[in-house]
Amino acid sequence: MTHTTEAGLRGGIDLGGTKIEAIVVDAANRVLGSSRHPTPIRGTPQDVAAEMSQAITEAAQAAGTTTSALIGVGVGSPGSVDATTGTVSSARNLPGWDGSYELGNELSHRLGTRVAIGNDVQVATAGEFKLGVGRSYSSLLGIFWGTGVGGGLVFAGKPWRGRGGAGEIGHMVIRRGGRRCPCGNEGCVEAYAGRAAMEAHARREIEGGRRSALLEIMQHKQRERFTSAVWETAVDRGDELAVELIDGAVEALAAGAASAVNLLDVEAVVIGGGLGVRFGEGYVERIRKAMRKHLFPGHTMPDVQLVALGDLGGALGAALLVDQASG
Amino acid sequence: MTHTTEAGLRGGIDLGGTKIEAIVVDAANRVLGSSRHPTPIRGTPQDVAAEMSQAITEAAQAAGTTTSALIGVGVGSPGSVDATTGTVSSARNLPGWDGSYELGNELSHRLGTRVAIGNDVQVATAGEFKLGVGRSYSSLLGIFWGTGVGGGLVFAGKPWRGRGGAGEIGHMVIRRGGRRCPCGNEGCVEAYAGRAAMEAHARREIEGGRRSALLEIMQHKQRERFTSAVWETAVDRGDELAVELIDGAVEALAAGAASAVNLLDVEAVVIGGGLGVRFGEGYVERIRKAMRKHLFPGHTMPDVQLVALGDLGGALGAALLVDQASG
Repeated sequence: MTHTTEAGLRGGIDLGGTKIEAIVVDAANRVLGSSRHPTPIRGTPQDVAAEMSQAITEAAQAAGTTTSALIGVGVGSPGSVDATTGTVSSARNLPGWDGSYELGNELSHRLGTRVAIGNDVQVATAGEFKLGVGRSYSSLLGIFWGTGVGGGLVFAGKPWRGRGGAGEIGHMVIRRGGRRCPCGNEGCVEAYAGRAAMEAHARREIEGGRRSALLEIMQHKQRERFTSAVWETAVDRGDELAVELIDGAVEALAAGAASAVNLLDVEAVVIGGGLGVRFGEGYVERIRKAMRKHLFPGHTMPDVQLVALGDLGGALGAALLVDQASG
Repeated sequence: MTHTTEAGLRGGIDLGGTKIEAIVVDAANRVLGSSRHPTPIRGTPQDVAAEMSQAITEAAQAAGTTTSALIGVGVGSPGSVDATTGTVSSARNLPGWDGSYELGNELSHRLGTRVAIGNDVQVATAGEFKLGVGRSYSSLLGIFWGTGVGGGLVFAGKPWRGRGGAGEIGHMVIRRGGRRCPCGNEGCVEAYAGRAAMEAHARREIEGGRRSALLEIMQHKQRERFTSAVWETAVDRGDELAVELIDGAVEALAAGAASAVNLLDVEAVVIGGGLGVRFGEGYVERIRKAMRKHLFPGHTMPDVQLVALGDLGGALGAALLVDQASG
């Protein structure tokens, strides 16, 4: 590896509710090294930062470098992100993170390079828009179907962040007075489609005496939560409760996506996230089909596509933050 | 009136499902003359064009001029508008307008001046954004609560039209499998809040034996439909059916508005339309309050305001189209 190449290396970390994905890329955004760690499910933001630090250090080693030799590291984070100060607040899906934490400063200290932080789904949407399936569109809606349901928006070729928090497609109301959402409101898309909400619902049903193989599959896979792989296996086996909940998720995502398209008339809807990538093309087709009955008759159906960058989209989008920071 | 002033005069026509509002304005957008006609509820697009022509001719007379002396006339129209050809298609709330009609050419012929056509709610939103309550914001969502429920969007100071049809907030889904909407889908905001949908629902209830003063009030006001004034009088008298439907409309509008804000995180929501203007500040406050329970907890409540231009907002916004056309 030449010095010139090394000088252009950047890191990207996608901090998810289930896993931390870290990569090191070159100037052409080719992945030279990567590492994946499970997100701590107990502890404090400090513990999460330590795990992130470990993951990006391993990715740098795999790329034949060290973190302090990187131009910088970009991070896509859940919760409310202050890009200027690197502070992350109210990251509900992370342990002990109800308050604010200076994630940027902490990581910068540990890694010996500068750190830029953005909202996870906005970052992943920008990644797909610049490097993935979104390249051929000037407007799109990204839907990230995972622990929660997040969204990202691009209008006229530019990301739209509103007052900083735009994209909460998971909290569009699709059933007034409906199921309680982890956010506290009722009838949100995420209440039906978020992996955490579906797990909570399934556990209540099972405790209430309903039969399901979900717990057994989870234990067999040596997991503590119903991961995307657990859901997939249960659905593949025809587990009634799992099929019912995933079908409900497809309907909820489709109603939210169609509502958003009726309002925004974007060219494309791009579907990713842990569950989106795991279930893949077949489910994108199901969502597309279910959107039709909610699409405003005067509208043209937008393209509905699976993300092209797969599991690494969030980390690739995060690495793009470093370019922006040096620009 | 001097020749200089006359040279700068423009016309604006707001073509609504219930009424046609025509104005003539000077270069500073002051209204010099106006006229209001009921929208024909039977007949053809030709009949509607004749009525529009009559209205703007009277407005020009009131301003001491003639239509052929105007720089041009802008029109805000429902349905699907092709601004380039002046063609309006699928205007469901207008008589015999399921197909396409060259409204621009027809009016231009009748009026002896050029005619620019835009989508009614996009035009009204642009009016509020440039001349009304929206002047202090860079992003907003306009909600027009009338015969139907329409919306307009401004992001970063610019109107967002998507692929031409953006803004259909009335067709966001707030109750999957809910009430049938005039658009044919189920559970849309408009199914609960649109004046036409509410009238159809009320008439079915009344035919089914439910007591209500709505028909009697309509007849007393010598109307053929439940106009905004009819609804207001019925609610003021405590008519149970009217109160129930208007309460449901407030809840539906609030769920749709909050969903849109959760997705877009705009600075302001501006409420207008025939019913919005008629019910006024008190109802804007009710909608604002009802939005809170659907607002994503991480978001800041946007300003929620009544339109400042009132009934004339649509026509003023339409007149702005002429400036754009000459630019």
